[in-house]
Amino acid sequence: MSYDEVAARHEGNPMSLLRRYLPILTWGAEYSRRTFTNDLVVACIVTIMLIPQSLAYALLAGLPPQVGLYASMAPLVLYAIFGTSRALAVGPVAVASLMTAAAAATIAAQGSPEYLGATIALAAISGLLLLALGLLRLGFLANFLSHPVISGFITASAIQIAAGQLAPVLGIKAHGESFVDLVKSMLPNLGNVNPRTAAIGFGSLAFLFWVRRGLKPLLRRLGIGERPADILAKLGPVVAIAVTTAAVWGLGLTEHGVKIVGTVPKGLPKLTLPPFEAGLWMKLVVPALLISIVGYVESISVALTLAAKRRQRVDPDQELIALGMSNVGSAFSGGFPVTGGFSRSVVNFEAGAETPAAGAFTAVGIALATLFLTPLLYFLPNATLAATIIVAVVSLVDLGALKKTWTYSKADFAAMVATILLTLVEGVEAGLLAGVGLAIFLHLYATSKPHVAVVGQIPGTMNFRNVTRHAVVTDPEILSLRVDASLYFPNARFLEEHVNEAVAANPAVRNVILECPAVNTIDYSALESLEAINQRLKDGGITLHLSEVKGPVMDRLKRSHFLDELTGKVHLTQFDAVSSINPDLAQRALRAQRA
Amino acid sequence: MSYDEVAARHEGNPMSLLRRYLPILTWGAEYSRRTFTNDLVVACIVTIMLIPQSLAYALLAGLPPQVGLYASMAPLVLYAIFGTSRALAVGPVAVASLMTAAAAATIAAQGSPEYLGATIALAAISGLLLLALGLLRLGFLANFLSHPVISGFITASAIQIAAGQLAPVLGIKAHGESFVDLVKSMLPNLGNVNPRTAAIGFGSLAFLFWVRRGLKPLLRRLGIGERPADILAKLGPVVAIAVTTAAVWGLGLTEHGVKIVGTVPKGLPKLTLPPFEAGLWMKLVVPALLISIVGYVESISVALTLAAKRRQRVDPDQELIALGMSNVGSAFSGGFPVTGGFSRSVVNFEAGAETPAAGAFTAVGIALATLFLTPLLYFLPNATLAATIIVAVVSLVDLGALKKTWTYSKADFAAMVATILLTLVEGVEAGLLAGVGLAIFLHLYATSKPHVAVVGQIPGTMNFRNVTRHAVVTDPEILSLRVDASLYFPNARFLEEHVNEAVAANPAVRNVILECPAVNTIDYSALESLEAINQRLKDGGITLHLSEVKGPVMDRLKRSHFLDELTGKVHLTQFDAVSSINPDLAQRALRAQRA
Repeated sequence: MSYDEVAARHEGNPMSLLRRYLPILTWGAEYSRRTFTNDLVVACIVTIMLIPQSLAYALLAGLPPQVGLYASMAPLVLYAIFGTSRALAVGPVAVASLMTAAAAATIAAQGSPEYLGATIALAAISGLLLLALGLLRLGFLANFLSHPVISGFITASAIQIAAGQLAPVLGIKAHGESFVDLVKSMLPNLGNVNPRTAAIGFGSLAFLFWVRRGLKPLLRRLGIGERPADILAKLGPVVAIAVTTAAVWGLGLTEHGVKIVGTVPKGLPKLTLPPFEAGLWMKLVVPALLISIVGYVESISVALTLAAKRRQRVDPDQELIALGMSNVGSAFSGGFPVTGGFSRSVVNFEAGAETPAAGAFTAVGIALATLFLTPLLYFLPNATLAATIIVAVVSLVDLGALKKTWTYSKADFAAMVATILLTLVEGVEAGLLAGVGLAIFLHLYATSKPHVAVVGQIPGTMNFRNVTRHAVVTDPEILSLRVDASLYFPNARFLEEHVNEAVAANPAVRNVILECPAVNTIDYSALESLEAINQRLKDGGITLHLSEVKGPVMDRLKRSHFLDELTGKVHLTQFDAVSSINPDLAQRALRAQRA
Repeated sequence: MSYDEVAARHEGNPMSLLRRYLPILTWGAEYSRRTFTNDLVVACIVTIMLIPQSLAYALLAGLPPQVGLYASMAPLVLYAIFGTSRALAVGPVAVASLMTAAAAATIAAQGSPEYLGATIALAAISGLLLLALGLLRLGFLANFLSHPVISGFITASAIQIAAGQLAPVLGIKAHGESFVDLVKSMLPNLGNVNPRTAAIGFGSLAFLFWVRRGLKPLLRRLGIGERPADILAKLGPVVAIAVTTAAVWGLGLTEHGVKIVGTVPKGLPKLTLPPFEAGLWMKLVVPALLISIVGYVESISVALTLAAKRRQRVDPDQELIALGMSNVGSAFSGGFPVTGGFSRSVVNFEAGAETPAAGAFTAVGIALATLFLTPLLYFLPNATLAATIIVAVVSLVDLGALKKTWTYSKADFAAMVATILLTLVEGVEAGLLAGVGLAIFLHLYATSKPHVAVVGQIPGTMNFRNVTRHAVVTDPEILSLRVDASLYFPNARFLEEHVNEAVAANPAVRNVILECPAVNTIDYSALESLEAINQRLKDGGITLHLSEVKGPVMDRLKRSHFLDELTGKVHLTQFDAVSSINPDLAQRALRAQRA
């Protein structure tokens, strides 16, 4: 059953419609005490994992750490109400945080109230855009991001994030909106590395990489189960934070220039009104759209993957609405753009989240943390948070995809490389837009020259095949062309030129037959091209026939004058077409022995 | 034989390559005295027709009248050397002149040397762009202009041109870069109409419309042949010019405020160097590209139509080179953008032009006119030239196409209407770009939701058809989906979602078979989607099979790891696929009576 059919069934039934837009009504009705206990345990685990992530991604977005916590409350509750995935965990993610920083930097300097306002506005615009796309069922817009483009973009973003986070790890300064600018700004400062900061930073890095690679096998050898081992290994950052915070406090390292998070304001976020300025919104609408779509693509892909494991359903349009509401919620609680994150969703899933309520309970956990735990974060070194970011994003770098893409398709490889290079050199927005543009361009290029084969009859059969691949019977007065593509504007003119060329090269031709079994559509441009071909062939004393035209295509052609003007006929099969022109030849070929 | 094959034959043969890029070597070798005499007669006719057109289109482009004559010399000679059409006549045309005026107005005010410089730069940039497209064989770029978009654009441009030319016909002022601005600027001046100018203008208009509609039938009744009657009817503007010029001179109308062409400088154009300023070129590159492509589309369409009547060949890539050289020639002789025009090419063809030499001779005719006839143009009223433009462009307005497009395709209709409205309101550049963008968007939208049918076996056959249209045999454990489209990034995610939905809706399913007879390509995005589908189905305990995969698609899949990871198999036919899972059912269905 297609979504449209589902939608059709829902039409006129207000309760179904309500259930569609509020999935909580469906799973909430079956909610039991057992599920509650289970979701509560999951929420504890995810909360512990989410606290360092939220702080780190807020810093990555150029924001005060508490903003990361704010962005991990309201969005989770709203997703629990509107989301269709049982296991997706929303919140700040690395790539969207980088894109947020890049967009906000075009408005104001980091640390200014205007910068904070810009990030809130980005969340609000993203949210409204996602809501609009969901309500208008325009989720297909995400398709504009081809896989090689998004993969290249994420690889380049991860490289840029990792490079940028090397600065806090080393205790030096860096600035710039692209990888190249960042590296340029860091090189002259390499002499000013703070040794204690670097010790904390590299120590955390080494520990976190070991946790990722070596801890899980160790835990498994110690007899711990697959899933608990997985989850314990994901809590490594919490240990690193605890140890390094204690070290900074105990050894008094702040006096030696080790940068710390400092005072994180206590308490829940206040209701914030996003800045509604037309000029600001105009400037931010393109980056907000890009953040929305990149975020949505990551989120829906995670949701589909997790849903498949339990044969659950995910509604892509409703997911747009849920992410839209989450971002609007983030904006109104002083947060920044959020989406469904890969690693936290996997933890949520593996810990056993059964309903989106686990997400809502996680939000409560984060709220409790902002109320009671923030004093503990005072001595948390920035270097440790930077190390957790680096370890998280390094796994996003997928250079193997370059080789895989190269082997499979040169056009896709070109789009991927262009996206990576432009993102590294020009920044995230330019890189992504160039990638999208190039992918569409290469797609139109590929479809602009479809395969057209000259065909002839295979002796002893009614079948027609490519003359260059098979021993076939042909008539010099009949040119049979099989078009292996739908006909629409990217290739309409090609067909005109191809027929002109073929006819000019074969002066004996008196009949042209277009065999159309692979033509799924004919748009208006192609219709006009067919009319032009028919008229030009007529001027040259040649008759045009069609064969094997599909039903829906034929229905549409009947709505035009083309069939009245067509000099020849539309034949059911290619054999019928040839038989109508040269019955003797067709019959002789049919009776002949196969070569 | 395809162009690539022609090209391959030419590789490594310098003489063939030279002949390809210099078509004059081919037709020049067969040039005879008879052809010469014939081409000379044609050139006389076309010259007489081209003089008023050249003057009028120069005024339309906001340039002094002699520039129109300059643009009708070098380009014609260069096209004769490089062009592949035997009958195409290049020179200034209405729509390109309007676009030139719009682009140059963004640089400087009409009448200033910078404005003239900008139009020359436009010709130079257009020429180089066309040359580059031709040499790199990127003519497919013209495909981005779908027929409804170009048709809507030309209709809107023609309406705008006609509206703008009403001002000189009435003897009032008008300015503005769009139809709406033009009309707004004219309304307050309607009280200042010059009655004598209006008399000349409307008199010319009435005469020219009568010539177009009534003269040819009259001449035919008088016993004149079809073609001479056609050509004589096309010379109407010359008569209007002669009569109104004489009237202005004889009646001393200039003293009553009738605007005249005035002094047209005598003599041939001097060699001009286009202004080479990076800033200017950057500003003009987009309009120049649009002018080039719109001009090329008109030109190649005329060339193909005329070539077909005599079964001659036109090489689209070489046409780009020829038009590129013509525009470069125009720039270096102080002209403005040119292209192959419809009406003059038809006159050229119907007068009997046998080779491009007729065009070169026309250039000589125009040169003689600039040397000796310009004093005769002194009293030529602008109103008459404006009338000739109006009569020429009114035939370009094709509102019937709106109805035709509406009947055939709503998406194409939307693109057409958007192009017309935006061109009228926002001007030519915005209108054209919006149309192109919308056409590409609608194309991607249409391909993003391909038709996917659930299929079952028709009893008594090995054939599988849509379950909703036929009485077929199915197995609740087998879900057979036929995908009626190539798989690429615009629809890759759709397939993932569709399979997720279908499997979630049918809990009994243990096997999914994708039947792929209409899949012409699978790009990297779709490959990754197939991998994700395979993995997700596997996680849900379902096996994925493929059937009827085309040869080239299979070759490509073999270059990836997909076939190794595929949980099921690739089957030659859908019947084989079902037989491998449930042989009993397949055999029983085969033996069953057809419903």
